[in-house]
Amino acid sequence: MARSFWQTWFQPKVSAIRPGSARRTRLSLEALDGASYPYLQVPGFAPNLRLDPPIQGSHAYRSVDTAAKMRAELSELEIDIGVLFPDHLLTFATLPNIEYATALGQAYNRWLMEEWLLKEPGLYGVLLATPQDPEAAAREIERYAKEERIVGIYLPTAGVNPLLGHRKYDPIMAAAEAAGLPVCLHSVTVVTPAFPCQIDQFENHFGRQVVSHAFAMMANLTSLIHSGAPARFPGLRVVFTEAGIAWVPYMMWRMDKYFNEYRRMVPFLEKRPSDYIREMMWFATQPIEEPDNPKDLVATIDLIGGPERIIYASDWPHHDFDHPRTIMKLPMPGDAKRKIMGENALRLFGITAPAGKL
Amino acid sequence: MARSFWQTWFQPKVSAIRPGSARRTRLSLEALDGASYPYLQVPGFAPNLRLDPPIQGSHAYRSVDTAAKMRAELSELEIDIGVLFPDHLLTFATLPNIEYATALGQAYNRWLMEEWLLKEPGLYGVLLATPQDPEAAAREIERYAKEERIVGIYLPTAGVNPLLGHRKYDPIMAAAEAAGLPVCLHSVTVVTPAFPCQIDQFENHFGRQVVSHAFAMMANLTSLIHSGAPARFPGLRVVFTEAGIAWVPYMMWRMDKYFNEYRRMVPFLEKRPSDYIREMMWFATQPIEEPDNPKDLVATIDLIGGPERIIYASDWPHHDFDHPRTIMKLPMPGDAKRKIMGENALRLFGITAPAGKL
Repeated sequence: MARSFWQTWFQPKVSAIRPGSARRTRLSLEALDGASYPYLQVPGFAPNLRLDPPIQGSHAYRSVDTAAKMRAELSELEIDIGVLFPDHLLTFATLPNIEYATALGQAYNRWLMEEWLLKEPGLYGVLLATPQDPEAAAREIERYAKEERIVGIYLPTAGVNPLLGHRKYDPIMAAAEAAGLPVCLHSVTVVTPAFPCQIDQFENHFGRQVVSHAFAMMANLTSLIHSGAPARFPGLRVVFTEAGIAWVPYMMWRMDKYFNEYRRMVPFLEKRPSDYIREMMWFATQPIEEPDNPKDLVATIDLIGGPERIIYASDWPHHDFDHPRTIMKLPMPGDAKRKIMGENALRLFGITAPAGKL
Repeated sequence: MARSFWQTWFQPKVSAIRPGSARRTRLSLEALDGASYPYLQVPGFAPNLRLDPPIQGSHAYRSVDTAAKMRAELSELEIDIGVLFPDHLLTFATLPNIEYATALGQAYNRWLMEEWLLKEPGLYGVLLATPQDPEAAAREIERYAKEERIVGIYLPTAGVNPLLGHRKYDPIMAAAEAAGLPVCLHSVTVVTPAFPCQIDQFENHFGRQVVSHAFAMMANLTSLIHSGAPARFPGLRVVFTEAGIAWVPYMMWRMDKYFNEYRRMVPFLEKRPSDYIREMMWFATQPIEEPDNPKDLVATIDLIGGPERIIYASDWPHHDFDHPRTIMKLPMPGDAKRKIMGENALRLFGITAPAGKL
């Protein structure tokens, strides 16, 4: 039987993480052996409680368990290059044990590199930065900064506390800025006591899913702007993922209006919020809005300032992924589609297109 | 000296509200006498803690203290008809004492009628419905249903817990539906432990203000839809105020996408969320978004489905009010402006236009 994720990738020794209780921890970790490890799902870290009753016809959780399979499936979707995000580690920020979180994050990054990115062509990844220990995260970013397959920094937003504009995270932002790596925010629907994840009262997943990703992105964008992060790190680039894009005009205009109104409260901002957004921020499409008239989505992209800041995201291998055709079928010029489907992301992530592509 | 708000409007006797402690309560209430009562500000209920340092040049709190002054100031803005909302009672939902909240709400409604609405022409009001006691609120709605000057039901959203889609509020929704009065949601920026008001970590009012109203409207809209309120009350009409309008396309499309995805979880919904929104919901403009290109705002109104569901709101007498010219200057046909500036609201609220107007 193959060595487990824990035996292979977890450093330092478990005894250093839980001094005095090494044996018990080890046993509990070893008890995880023998399970399969679907795509980026770290065994032992899947704390999702099923809040809703099983409903006939619901989609089963869909995953991928090897890089080869991921490569094959992306190719089937005609996707040449994929940037991999964690899956169950989307709830990473809810981990309260700082040493455990740091070690798990480092194990994940090693595993991501060795088991996924270096195994197949066209697979890139975002490095998990541990919000629980920003100094350790900064050292991790420095360690991987020159790795060709690491093209960004992943910061969890579900349960992150405080929100990401807090000066606590300045070491991560500084390291990302110095490495030239964009910071990529990704949320997931969880119920936690950290704003804005206190979604316990929604009675079904429809309600939770509508607000969770949406509020996470808007709250963290507001947090970044209101604390002056773009002014502190003028070379920072931020990517907002998995909440669609139609919220962006609202937040740009709303923040500009209150910037005029309450400018004295944010004296460190040298530009309008929408200027920072248009210069330093990108927005990933999935789950792309699908208005009855596809022209309405094109109009929304125009309101954001055109296709320059929009990047296609698939959310593969989840069942609710967006096929490339969700963008390709839009009534939009070909060059706009080319930007959204690849050019913007290649430039943002510093990836060289495969020969013959683009 | 005139009799105070408390002496005149508060019923039943204070002793009925706090059995056994009448004298102490009375004394504390009497201690409030002698203060002036600016526009709709009920003395003794202004629990706002100043979270931010005083900043030179900041706007002072602006209010109006008589109906005559309100009438004169609205006329100066060329506003013929005003629908009055509470001011400090925007935090009404945070009151924990159910009997006190009910009595205060009833006192407010009496005061609103006698001191404001019946004193001047063209002043209409929304009746405060006590979310703390929906049955009492329903009786209050029935009591005022035929009053010409009462044109809607005000429901606070700041601190409301649970959110307004909860079946707890069905008596209010049923009474509003039966009375033909639209339910008007209005928020305010407060920090409370009730979702989504847990905005304690934002360091300045800019950040709090960006998310507070926005999240309150989106969360309560999601709550109403996800619990099936529009299906339970097909005659219900809902107005969302004071969060601008550019969030509406995002929520329509996002909910439609998840309606397709998680339809099994909301089997009681007979139509798509956007259908319910376009048929039963209205959106008040203030604080209207002001993109660099005013055409972008017109495009946003088109994304919502045209001007039919948009109603102008001034937020007068607050310093950050929107002058009617914010709408009048938009590059939009005259009939669209006429709808937004009056026709829609007249029909929604069942108000007859003054002779010679519209």
